[in-house]
Amino acid sequence: MDSVFQRIDHVGIACHNLEEKIEFYESTFGLVVVSREVNEEQGVREAMLHVADGDGGASYIQLLEPLHPDTAVGKYLSKRGEGVHHIGYGVADVAKAMADIAAKGVRLIDERPRHGSMGASIAFLHPKDVGGVLTELVETPRH
Amino acid sequence: MDSVFQRIDHVGIACHNLEEKIEFYESTFGLVVVSREVNEEQGVREAMLHVADGDGGASYIQLLEPLHPDTAVGKYLSKRGEGVHHIGYGVADVAKAMADIAAKGVRLIDERPRHGSMGASIAFLHPKDVGGVLTELVETPRH
Repeated sequence: MDSVFQRIDHVGIACHNLEEKIEFYESTFGLVVVSREVNEEQGVREAMLHVADGDGGASYIQLLEPLHPDTAVGKYLSKRGEGVHHIGYGVADVAKAMADIAAKGVRLIDERPRHGSMGASIAFLHPKDVGGVLTELVETPRH
Repeated sequence: MDSVFQRIDHVGIACHNLEEKIEFYESTFGLVVVSREVNEEQGVREAMLHVADGDGGASYIQLLEPLHPDTAVGKYLSKRGEGVHHIGYGVADVAKAMADIAAKGVRLIDERPRHGSMGASIAFLHPKDVGGVLTELVETPRH
């Protein structure tokens, strides 16, 4: 089979203070913020920092601060502290990827694609079915 | 400043059974193993699965199984269970990147570069200084 994944779109990192962490990644590693958003549905304030361009699209570090303690990322921080929250992989067609992956027996958290960073259509796979890794599928918008 | 990072080289994922997890990533996502190694120094049996090629080099998923419970990855599994263990970023010159990053006040786990996957020279940064993320610098060998 061909790979479902076109790239590592981003690694999502949970943090307590988004502005502090952006400043750290900028000043220590020279990464540059290309997008800031508040996603009320997911309960996060977030920033995308560009790392690289590739054949399958760009790769980013995504910094995530919870809007409230009672959100997925807020609960993650309470339980595990700051650190890697999920991996997002670029896919050509998120609906097709969801169907293909579900057919392999992996449970989907999202029944339908929803709104992600920078206009992407996204869906999450259940971490219990992916070896403890919260895994996101990311279809970037066509321009 | 220019970015220190050329790409997301790999995301390292800790697992209990390397062969089972390789089979899962191959059959579910269509990723392909390009390298298998035992790294006695780091106490791991590992596989690199190719995800994408990019301007700054290729990106991989690295699956890691501890050789013994009393290793860094073995202790991680005991404490946190399976999941993302670290992020490895590609750099042009690992010794220079280490010096530049240390000068910003980030502690290095490694005083000197050591042997990583597929002939790379690598060094780890202290996760406490990188927001809970175990961060690896990866210089691939020149061919």
